[in-house]
Amino acid sequence: MLRQRVVNTLAVRSVIARQGLYTSTTRRLPSAPPLRPTASRPTVKLPTQSRILATVSAAAKDEPPPPPPPPPKERSAFVRALIKTAAFAGFAGMSVTAIIVAFFLYDASTYKESVDEVDISVPQIALNPRRGGPKNLPIAEVLIDDDEHEEIQRLKTKPRLVVLGSGWGSVALIKNLNPEDYHVTVISPSNYFLYTPLLPSATVGTLEVRSLVEPIRRITGAIRGHFIKATAEDVDFSEKLVEVSQIGPDGQKRHFYVPYDKLVIGVGSKTRTHGVEGLQYCQFLKDVNDARIIRKKVIENFEQACLPTTTDEERRKLLSFVVCGGGPTGVEFAAELFDMLNEDLTLRYPRILRNEVSVHIVQSRSHILNTYDEALSKYAEERFARQQIDVLTNARVCKIEKDKVIFTQKEEGKVVTKELPFGLCLWSTGVAPTHFAHKIAESLEIQKNAFALETDTHLRLLGAPLGDVYAIGDCATVQNNVASHVVEFLQSMAVETGIRDPTKQELTFSQWRKLAPRIKRKFPQATYHLRRLDRLFEKYDEDKSGTLDFNELTKMLQQIDKKLTSLPATAQRAHQQGQYLARKLNKLVHAAPGLEINQIVDGDLDAFVYKAFEYKHLGSLAYVGNAAVFDVIPGMPFAGGLVYLYLWRSAYFAQSVSARTRMLLAMDWTKRALFGRDLMNF
Amino acid sequence: MLRQRVVNTLAVRSVIARQGLYTSTTRRLPSAPPLRPTASRPTVKLPTQSRILATVSAAAKDEPPPPPPPPPKERSAFVRALIKTAAFAGFAGMSVTAIIVAFFLYDASTYKESVDEVDISVPQIALNPRRGGPKNLPIAEVLIDDDEHEEIQRLKTKPRLVVLGSGWGSVALIKNLNPEDYHVTVISPSNYFLYTPLLPSATVGTLEVRSLVEPIRRITGAIRGHFIKATAEDVDFSEKLVEVSQIGPDGQKRHFYVPYDKLVIGVGSKTRTHGVEGLQYCQFLKDVNDARIIRKKVIENFEQACLPTTTDEERRKLLSFVVCGGGPTGVEFAAELFDMLNEDLTLRYPRILRNEVSVHIVQSRSHILNTYDEALSKYAEERFARQQIDVLTNARVCKIEKDKVIFTQKEEGKVVTKELPFGLCLWSTGVAPTHFAHKIAESLEIQKNAFALETDTHLRLLGAPLGDVYAIGDCATVQNNVASHVVEFLQSMAVETGIRDPTKQELTFSQWRKLAPRIKRKFPQATYHLRRLDRLFEKYDEDKSGTLDFNELTKMLQQIDKKLTSLPATAQRAHQQGQYLARKLNKLVHAAPGLEINQIVDGDLDAFVYKAFEYKHLGSLAYVGNAAVFDVIPGMPFAGGLVYLYLWRSAYFAQSVSARTRMLLAMDWTKRALFGRDLMNF
Repeated sequence: MLRQRVVNTLAVRSVIARQGLYTSTTRRLPSAPPLRPTASRPTVKLPTQSRILATVSAAAKDEPPPPPPPPPKERSAFVRALIKTAAFAGFAGMSVTAIIVAFFLYDASTYKESVDEVDISVPQIALNPRRGGPKNLPIAEVLIDDDEHEEIQRLKTKPRLVVLGSGWGSVALIKNLNPEDYHVTVISPSNYFLYTPLLPSATVGTLEVRSLVEPIRRITGAIRGHFIKATAEDVDFSEKLVEVSQIGPDGQKRHFYVPYDKLVIGVGSKTRTHGVEGLQYCQFLKDVNDARIIRKKVIENFEQACLPTTTDEERRKLLSFVVCGGGPTGVEFAAELFDMLNEDLTLRYPRILRNEVSVHIVQSRSHILNTYDEALSKYAEERFARQQIDVLTNARVCKIEKDKVIFTQKEEGKVVTKELPFGLCLWSTGVAPTHFAHKIAESLEIQKNAFALETDTHLRLLGAPLGDVYAIGDCATVQNNVASHVVEFLQSMAVETGIRDPTKQELTFSQWRKLAPRIKRKFPQATYHLRRLDRLFEKYDEDKSGTLDFNELTKMLQQIDKKLTSLPATAQRAHQQGQYLARKLNKLVHAAPGLEINQIVDGDLDAFVYKAFEYKHLGSLAYVGNAAVFDVIPGMPFAGGLVYLYLWRSAYFAQSVSARTRMLLAMDWTKRALFGRDLMNF
Repeated sequence: MLRQRVVNTLAVRSVIARQGLYTSTTRRLPSAPPLRPTASRPTVKLPTQSRILATVSAAAKDEPPPPPPPPPKERSAFVRALIKTAAFAGFAGMSVTAIIVAFFLYDASTYKESVDEVDISVPQIALNPRRGGPKNLPIAEVLIDDDEHEEIQRLKTKPRLVVLGSGWGSVALIKNLNPEDYHVTVISPSNYFLYTPLLPSATVGTLEVRSLVEPIRRITGAIRGHFIKATAEDVDFSEKLVEVSQIGPDGQKRHFYVPYDKLVIGVGSKTRTHGVEGLQYCQFLKDVNDARIIRKKVIENFEQACLPTTTDEERRKLLSFVVCGGGPTGVEFAAELFDMLNEDLTLRYPRILRNEVSVHIVQSRSHILNTYDEALSKYAEERFARQQIDVLTNARVCKIEKDKVIFTQKEEGKVVTKELPFGLCLWSTGVAPTHFAHKIAESLEIQKNAFALETDTHLRLLGAPLGDVYAIGDCATVQNNVASHVVEFLQSMAVETGIRDPTKQELTFSQWRKLAPRIKRKFPQATYHLRRLDRLFEKYDEDKSGTLDFNELTKMLQQIDKKLTSLPATAQRAHQQGQYLARKLNKLVHAAPGLEINQIVDGDLDAFVYKAFEYKHLGSLAYVGNAAVFDVIPGMPFAGGLVYLYLWRSAYFAQSVSARTRMLLAMDWTKRALFGRDLMNF
């Protein structure tokens, strides 16, 4: 358009020049001849350039110039906006179509028609393993997929790492291992990883159970690891064999050994019963099938409540849902249940059901979510009160019968026994060791903790040969025994003080300040309690000698031990332990080139290579019914409604273990928004 | 810009006019005064309009005109293309973002926080039904949601339609009923509708079982219908009561009556055993749980095959999958299995498994898919041969043992007994009546068919009071008894022939041509066999009298009866019957205003109101492993690979029962494309 204009104006200039209309300042006009009218003189009209051009051509042809065109119509702003919106919508439609077409082209490439006929080599010893070990069972020294292709073959000579369990600890470990360093075998009775924090959502259909599980073979595949679906039975620490069992094709249980160079025990936990009678009438919420059973039962109760033959009393009982335990699992289940009752039940079922439904939480402490910040407990309690979820605090369950819960509650100082009929009762209070973990603990004398396997701060199982066996996750806890290392600590100060005998040590303040970091390095959990070294020194220097002697130091460390809590049995902690262990194992394998890993070097190779494990509590979230509470920043809890719900979902979405899981979660939440929850059971 | 130009040129004109440059043809210039150079005469330069404007203002100010601007830079075609692509991508991104934001806004509106506190009225008699009927059970005359809101209350006075079953027939019926005409109660032991054709896909994880089911309450909700989850036990035709049972909250079975004005029996069928022994070792594929069990077992077999303790022979047996029955279900299952083995098994499991896997189909006829066009059978067989799926035809199963199938096969005229070890055996051969249907048939003397309840061509159950009870779907078939109506037909010709006694009737050809349409109208299935009336007349006029007498006509109709096949037990047929019945019921309720529906009018009200049922076979599809066969246009079958796969999927996608199901199917197929099938079991 610009060019056109230039051309036109040049044309104009030439026309005007020809017509003697162009004058320059420098030239003085001579006495111009008078303008004589001629018949052929064209008239010049200058409203538009096209007319000028027309005029130029008309000048040549002596034609009358064309009439002026009408001015162009103005489009109103509204019409222009409409056009722009249509253009945008058109673009949107085209882009969505383009994405869909691209996807179909990709989809067409994912179908395989021809049969893969690949000759593979399978080691004979894998098909017919030799027998051995204390019980003379087959030993799986070589697995059937050990020779499949080059990458896997390279791992045959690597140290053998056996991981028991497919939960948070094990999966975090696997995902952080370097692929080329270990021959990894994962053994678990479940061939999937379960994203436990979202399990309450699966009990009512907000999410599907399949969206919470990831096949373990997808995870082990990334490090060319192997998976065996079997249950761990026992460990022979001297021969370095794990005994596992699985039901064979004939229906009989078969045992066999799996040899290891390093063993990681991440077998998790089972639900703690607290010795309460009648738990066979309760549901648990630990695994995928638990969620399915609960979901099926809830719908079944609804259907039975609709029958003409159900009496009023039976209906109220069927629709009474009781949760024993006011921790995050119980609270989230109650919240999810309420959401489903409020949003979907009324739409589909007779309304009388909604009026008769009741949800109860029986909590033995004085607040639900008592491990959270107090403000968050209060927020959750107020919310539940508004929603008519019945929260019974200071209530301890004595016994559970077929259709009612018998509990005691403190009322005005007195202990009153009460009954609560239920149609479904969820038991969600704490964890206990599995059968296997218990067996291991029994076989090692040093293991004294009734609730978990004890490890040192490097996560090495106490009692097993140093550096062979690790234990992470719910099944284990780090032993707090700072005080029992006092001799070791004082011995390490021999150079500084000049005194060899630890019982005779006397530490000055500056020497104390040198010792404290060594304690912190070995026991990172104690860091918090070793902040004010001056105050500690002053407090425990009882004889005011200006020095800390053996007894005084022992006392101090014992007091610190008492304050150290055992690690919480949460997914977060297991995840951190798994990550830590993976990083350490990555370093270990390169730490001693020339040294074979299974020649244990006297002394602490782990400590040489890596730091001790330190648990960093990153915070807790909980879902409380279209709202969420966040105990993330100490002292600054926040909670709220819908926006926090999205935040809560985003946190778990980001933490998901794979793209597949994320897509399934997103689709489930979308389905809930568009169509509500499915209320059917099969 | 246009306006600017107009203004500018006007300015130019005025400038030029003022300068005496404008001349018109009509005016003769007087002897113009000579152009005298004056110091103040401005110079006019016309290259650009801005310069003209500048000049205009300069004319006022006597300033030197500005220098000409440089010509604009040219962008290369490549850069322009790049810019356009970026703009398009930007638009695409913006549109997708806009869609997502809009969705989140919608999602935020779907959460309900406050408790719905609605007072509802529940009829007392619904809570405490009176007892009655032959067995003195509670009668559900009024349901607990009969008074919930105005729309439902209006239906209380409408005729009561009770539908037994929640399968294809019942759902097609419900979806085509007018909402305001009947008080509808659906009774079924399943509270979902299952999209059976896609069930084989759910056995291996191509689709999830949840994508194939739709909650029945969503479907009944559209016509304000009611649903009771119970099993039908018996029908009292005289009292018009259906006896149903359900397990109550106390674990005991409870029976009660549901009264009806019209009853529709669509209870479906169960798998036929053909009297073969050992079926407890087999899997069936009829319902959702069947698919789940099969899926779990397949994965379990894979896992067991990986164990070091599994011998070679055991491994081959575990990985041998046998399908008894070469109909669509069996063929599709084998095809889906093969797809999963080929596409996903090799990725995740040791490769030795792929080499040891074998799939077998045992078909008693000489071809698989023998009800389809022959070309399609051949296509499927060739395809399976290429894929090494072992198809055994002319093989009849004698007995099934715990881990092998014993069958006989015709080889070179002789019958040979063979064995086939299996890890999983699917039994998919034909249907048989349910316990309830069998009971009904026994109670009605006229019911003689061992396989299904017999109805007339108006789908009314033979033996029940006319017009009270209908039967559709797998549980029923239309009785082919054209010949037994010969008296009726001949009586109807009395006017034309003048002879009243049917046994003495003699029909001329033109009279025969008048009778034939009446036969076709009453028995639409016979239409095909009554095409060439001239040939038929000639053939059966045995005595060549030029007329058809009673015996000759009877013979003809008997021959036609023999050719009429019973209706196929397919989803398609049940669907057509359900639709047909809904349309007829819609008409019936308006056919006799003033007449109460439950006052049966003597004579055939159904025939008066609507035509007889005619089954139109729309064709059959089958999936044969990343390919599909289409027997849709008679004589023009087509089959092929990937494109037909998409066509097959589209057909089922379009036929889906709701938007929710369509979304779930699309998401499942997408998930398979992106992440493969899940290989885990729980």
